[in-house]
Amino acid sequence: MTNNEDTIVALATPNGIGAIGVIRLSGPDAITIAQKVWKGKDLTKQASHTLHFGRIMDGDMELDEVVASLFVAPRSYTRENVVEVSCHGSNYIIESIIKLFIRNGARAAKAGEFTLRAFLNGQLDLSQAEAVADLIASNSKASQQIALQQLRGGFSSQLKQLRDQLVTFASLIELELDFAEEDVEFANRDQLKKLIHEITKVIGSLIQSFELGNAIKNGVNTVIAGRPNAGKSTLLNALLNEERAIVSHIPGTTRDTIEEVLNIKGINFRLIDTAGIREATDAIEQIGVQRTMEKISQSALLIYVFDADQITAEELTADIESLQKPGITMLLVANKADLLDGDEKLKKFKEKHRNSYDFQGSPTDGLVLISAKEKQQIDELKQQIYAAAIKENLSGHETLVTNIRHLEALQKTEEALIRVLAGIDTVTSDFLSMDIKQALHYLGEITGAVTTDDLLENIFSKFCIGK
Amino acid sequence: MTNNEDTIVALATPNGIGAIGVIRLSGPDAITIAQKVWKGKDLTKQASHTLHFGRIMDGDMELDEVVASLFVAPRSYTRENVVEVSCHGSNYIIESIIKLFIRNGARAAKAGEFTLRAFLNGQLDLSQAEAVADLIASNSKASQQIALQQLRGGFSSQLKQLRDQLVTFASLIELELDFAEEDVEFANRDQLKKLIHEITKVIGSLIQSFELGNAIKNGVNTVIAGRPNAGKSTLLNALLNEERAIVSHIPGTTRDTIEEVLNIKGINFRLIDTAGIREATDAIEQIGVQRTMEKISQSALLIYVFDADQITAEELTADIESLQKPGITMLLVANKADLLDGDEKLKKFKEKHRNSYDFQGSPTDGLVLISAKEKQQIDELKQQIYAAAIKENLSGHETLVTNIRHLEALQKTEEALIRVLAGIDTVTSDFLSMDIKQALHYLGEITGAVTTDDLLENIFSKFCIGK
Repeated sequence: MTNNEDTIVALATPNGIGAIGVIRLSGPDAITIAQKVWKGKDLTKQASHTLHFGRIMDGDMELDEVVASLFVAPRSYTRENVVEVSCHGSNYIIESIIKLFIRNGARAAKAGEFTLRAFLNGQLDLSQAEAVADLIASNSKASQQIALQQLRGGFSSQLKQLRDQLVTFASLIELELDFAEEDVEFANRDQLKKLIHEITKVIGSLIQSFELGNAIKNGVNTVIAGRPNAGKSTLLNALLNEERAIVSHIPGTTRDTIEEVLNIKGINFRLIDTAGIREATDAIEQIGVQRTMEKISQSALLIYVFDADQITAEELTADIESLQKPGITMLLVANKADLLDGDEKLKKFKEKHRNSYDFQGSPTDGLVLISAKEKQQIDELKQQIYAAAIKENLSGHETLVTNIRHLEALQKTEEALIRVLAGIDTVTSDFLSMDIKQALHYLGEITGAVTTDDLLENIFSKFCIGK
Repeated sequence: MTNNEDTIVALATPNGIGAIGVIRLSGPDAITIAQKVWKGKDLTKQASHTLHFGRIMDGDMELDEVVASLFVAPRSYTRENVVEVSCHGSNYIIESIIKLFIRNGARAAKAGEFTLRAFLNGQLDLSQAEAVADLIASNSKASQQIALQQLRGGFSSQLKQLRDQLVTFASLIELELDFAEEDVEFANRDQLKKLIHEITKVIGSLIQSFELGNAIKNGVNTVIAGRPNAGKSTLLNALLNEERAIVSHIPGTTRDTIEEVLNIKGINFRLIDTAGIREATDAIEQIGVQRTMEKISQSALLIYVFDADQITAEELTADIESLQKPGITMLLVANKADLLDGDEKLKKFKEKHRNSYDFQGSPTDGLVLISAKEKQQIDELKQQIYAAAIKENLSGHETLVTNIRHLEALQKTEEALIRVLAGIDTVTSDFLSMDIKQALHYLGEITGAVTTDDLLENIFSKFCIGK
């Protein structure tokens, strides 16, 4: 997979009907291959970062009028010579030109091979390369920002720092092995302990960030539950109403569920509706409740809607107790505010239910009084939904782990470091050395300082062709 | 539709998943609008035809790392300032960048508006602009070559030449009108007649070329007919066998027909299979024959297959007589050559059937003896199919009319010129002048020397967005 000697070619733009298609060539012979089929200025004599109008010729036959973009190594995405040919967007023309390039010495690129080369040639490290795929897949402001942050190398440089510190100690301990008979200690054990404590703290917080990072990248699964006539559908409509433009229907994980996507401040919330819950008096209703509970358990956020006017203290207590699950944030939405009398409705409501529920404390994370029908306090509710899922204040610059491969490598690093700590005062240098090396190995896998062909194959085969 | 003062923006590449998307800005403010959201070198100070790496910024927030292509007016497709931003191929990113450009003063481009501007700014004439759409829609070598030929302006320059000659005469005749009382004749009537004869000859051959041009652009409808067990299916498979790679199934015009596309030397032949024909002895079989006849009448080429070993002279004569239709080329394919004895099979076959049919003369255009089963003479058959449809030797440089709008304008030009000829010796200068002007008008409509907003709207609204 790591042969950089040849020149690869692929369509870089999507298949389908469009004004133009862009065909990308990368490799030592990219410019000379393009020149072989080129009618126009001599491409081999042009400066990097220039654009040239010309014709692609198959012998005497013109294939198209095109514009060629020239990037001379190392000033390109792959750090190789790159030519991008912008041709008319006909599949026939695109295929003809790609075949012509192949007949003239190029090879059809595999999925992700351009980015693989960018990695192999040191343009990007592995986690940055993965960010390229994340960026292309990004579908919200937050997922785009997190991918860009990773592409810029914030995550990588943080890991590199940790790794550099460990490397110093690893080499000192290696040194001890060379002088094993003399029983010297080059690596100060207290300093090593302190360092490993620091590193595990950073790694621990990176591991913790995955929950949020994953929510941002893949959206937040949000269940809406409530008794019949609590106003769930009206609430759903009220939430989606102003967001129609960026809302879409996505088939759910189960066939009978249609998800609606609500975007709040760049985060996609996948709203999963449930059948109305009621006290289960028979077996069938029991099944309905069970299904709702399953959906809740697969979610990160639960919006519990109830009729503020009608609900009794007992019902409220019972619902909250039956719905709450550890690790899943619950947001209480008191609906039908329009039916309540007088002013200071929220305050009055809380007072009325003070004895049955403590709205200030856990396990609920908030109570919002709204009128879905009259569209009152919907914006406030959205703020609360966002706050319930995204507890930190996102600046767009924090490092969040979004990639399960990274998560696993971090977890393995953590385990190895814990073994180092456990043995630091008791085991010999060679055992310590082994565990530190293992931690280094897993950290290195994230940025690609350590790679195998299988790992690369696994990562880049998921890219699209042409990237 | 002809406001060139503003700057337009659109995605120039297809929607969907790809490595990159290209967003195109064109207009007087293209570069300054791009600069407003640009982090990198100052784009307003860069030379035309240069490429720049940079970041698209929405205020403090980065939207993407991109490469911008700079084309400074008039050295661009539209002859206006053009910036093409090549960004990561995420729909979210593409939409965000387009919206950002719009917030900064650009306007969403209408379908075909870039090419409309290229036309309005004199980069292309109207028939060349139409060739751009044809090029994007081209799906075979021949349709691509014919569109390229039109894009290069071969057709246009031919029409311009005709028009220039007519204009000279028109102005001389106009002059006669100014001196009407003196009864002078500036425009020599014999020369005018000669010229109009020449022009109508050229226009006549252009009109005639439409049949071929249309076949090339849209493919040649080809019916395969024959008695049951003549070997139609085997023939179809033999024809398609080596061409699998470039063959596709296209739903036919009727629901029960599946067309197979066979590409021979760049021309698409749409092969339409029919039920086996046999002498109709009852009403139902009559309907079957009628259907086959209908399909034949909608085609340009009929391949009649029969069993060379079994067919009788009477059957052959009857089939040919019942199948042949005026204007539709018929190709006779004698199948099952493998079952015939000895050498010189074709010669022997012709001798045997000499009395029942004259294979040298009309109305058949050829006879091929093949074995579909043994794949004998299949290449020869393909040559014959091609020759039967494409009678001229296509050099790729001839002018063929492919556009029905052009055909109609040419026909109206011809009619006006015929009126000129008819009246040239009898009617007064003012009538002659009127008809010549009408001819000029229709000729001018093809290249866009004469246009209306409706005409432009009609042409460019069929383009894709971004072209």
